[in-house]
Amino acid sequence: MSEVDIVGAVCPVPLPHEDIIVMGHGSGGKLGADLVSKLFMPAFDNVFLGAGDDGAVLSIPGGRIAISTDSHVVFPLFFPGGDIGHLSVCGTVNDVSMMGAKPLYMSVGFILEEGLSMDTLRRVVNSMKLAAEEAGIKIVTGDTKVVQRGKADGLYINTTGVGIIPPSVNVSGSRARAGDSVILSGTIGDHGIAVLGARGELGFESDIQSDSAPLNHLVSAMLEASDNIHVLRDPTRGGVATTLNEIAKQSKVGILLNESSIPVRPAVASVCEMLGFDPLYVANEGKLLAIVAPEDTEKILAVMRKTKYGQDAVIIGEVQAKPQNRVIMKTTLGSTRVVDVLMGEMLPRIC
Amino acid sequence: MSEVDIVGAVCPVPLPHEDIIVMGHGSGGKLGADLVSKLFMPAFDNVFLGAGDDGAVLSIPGGRIAISTDSHVVFPLFFPGGDIGHLSVCGTVNDVSMMGAKPLYMSVGFILEEGLSMDTLRRVVNSMKLAAEEAGIKIVTGDTKVVQRGKADGLYINTTGVGIIPPSVNVSGSRARAGDSVILSGTIGDHGIAVLGARGELGFESDIQSDSAPLNHLVSAMLEASDNIHVLRDPTRGGVATTLNEIAKQSKVGILLNESSIPVRPAVASVCEMLGFDPLYVANEGKLLAIVAPEDTEKILAVMRKTKYGQDAVIIGEVQAKPQNRVIMKTTLGSTRVVDVLMGEMLPRIC
Repeated sequence: MSEVDIVGAVCPVPLPHEDIIVMGHGSGGKLGADLVSKLFMPAFDNVFLGAGDDGAVLSIPGGRIAISTDSHVVFPLFFPGGDIGHLSVCGTVNDVSMMGAKPLYMSVGFILEEGLSMDTLRRVVNSMKLAAEEAGIKIVTGDTKVVQRGKADGLYINTTGVGIIPPSVNVSGSRARAGDSVILSGTIGDHGIAVLGARGELGFESDIQSDSAPLNHLVSAMLEASDNIHVLRDPTRGGVATTLNEIAKQSKVGILLNESSIPVRPAVASVCEMLGFDPLYVANEGKLLAIVAPEDTEKILAVMRKTKYGQDAVIIGEVQAKPQNRVIMKTTLGSTRVVDVLMGEMLPRIC
Repeated sequence: MSEVDIVGAVCPVPLPHEDIIVMGHGSGGKLGADLVSKLFMPAFDNVFLGAGDDGAVLSIPGGRIAISTDSHVVFPLFFPGGDIGHLSVCGTVNDVSMMGAKPLYMSVGFILEEGLSMDTLRRVVNSMKLAAEEAGIKIVTGDTKVVQRGKADGLYINTTGVGIIPPSVNVSGSRARAGDSVILSGTIGDHGIAVLGARGELGFESDIQSDSAPLNHLVSAMLEASDNIHVLRDPTRGGVATTLNEIAKQSKVGILLNESSIPVRPAVASVCEMLGFDPLYVANEGKLLAIVAPEDTEKILAVMRKTKYGQDAVIIGEVQAKPQNRVIMKTTLGSTRVVDVLMGEMLPRIC
């Protein structure tokens, strides 16, 4: 792909900056320019990035745009079902999508650790390229900084996404209404437990995969099917419990969940039980919650189930007028309990 | 400003998370929400940020928008004339401005180190607030991650800016033409040397201040005065030398500099001489280079000199048809030398 790949044949002792990241890659000089021209440009190739200015110029129709940003510090960088590159694109694609917007453009800011192997960076960049292609989003501008050894765990990635909100769309965390259905697009807890497994913290081998996925096509299908989608949100850090609490507060409503309807893979459920985690608080990276008008619920579910990332969509609860600002769950044992937000820390560095 | 400030009066032994950043501040739960509601929201208060969704919804007129991103990893966090917060806002305001755009909105991604003092974070956030106010830009959405002790130097900040390009404006690094004047808005090297001084690497006390400043109002005044501004660029990492080389390559022209016209503060010049640095390669954070049509040069200079950050604007050279892709300098001794891009690393972690 680049000179970096073939230099070994020319020079038996490659220079350090051809195999690994050195401080000079962040100094704004020749090494940084090489990184852009040999690695980032071929991967993210598009007309905006090619202009070579300090940013990108984009044409946008008048109206509403959505903008969302996320820094990614997941540890380890690679885990079953994904890596920091895939996650950094999907995370922001999803945040923009949850505002009812069609994500179009993305900026990328890399913070690289001195000594990071160029092979690792290449793998991460390739994952970003694949995720961006699947989502149909263009990576239009970027920035690279380098910090000394020990001052990052290989790399951190910030992505900021811009999307356009169609005129008919009006979704927000504040629009849940009593009587609305709460839909979940699939199983919960997969991402958090997959990352935990990759850290070797389970004490045994697990084949649990992260659900890291771009949800924009699923959201487009839903928004085409109905004008009565009130809230969209992806339950990432803090999980379904924290996300629904935020919505309950924003909308000043109560949310009643039905525990037996919430899909959890048996392997994830076992790990959670063993470690004392509640899957309701475990992060997801390819799931969404939708709060929709009751009359359109079945239509929306049907559309979701036809898509790649919405096959297991189910109704998990409903919105009620009271108790305001609260999430309540009817347990499998028939009792009810309050589901609060995540207090403190459960799984750090999960995204 | 927040409960964090007064909690000592209520509880003689403050909880750790009230004084310092703990891992839980990055877990997407209650502590993170507190950070947003008690620190970020009061500082960056605006209607977009207040919506509480995962991003911001903005109304934009149809046309061209500019987007630019920068991660900031400057070390140390505080230096004469600025800090990482001020820099993170100004850097992105300036990148957006250099595309001829009026910067309007900004996202902020914080990567915080566990153990960072809340006081330090508050100082940094306050600097961001002041810089955003001066620039007239709104911080509309953000994200916070926390990494373990030792995995960052206090904090890293990514900012991504969005601006609108007026229909009449057409600036790009590829638009320099033979005969154009090269204007520099003021003295060079101040930022790099100020940061070096703050690291204690000079071996003596220095009163050199960073030039960190938002240049959008200067750019607006210039663009109002003339439709013949071809290139705008801020010479940050890699300095004036690297920036002009990039422009020469993008525009396929030669640039001839006149060394005696390039303003360098005597204190900066002495430090550079002592340390063997060439100020042409030292980073600036409040300066711009403009390449403009010869007939409008004086008009543009006059307008620049009336503004706060353009008082010392001067012509430092001109664009020539040849040698293509090269920057040449007539030295104070009367000889000419090639001015190349920065090779490798000079001052790491400068922004």
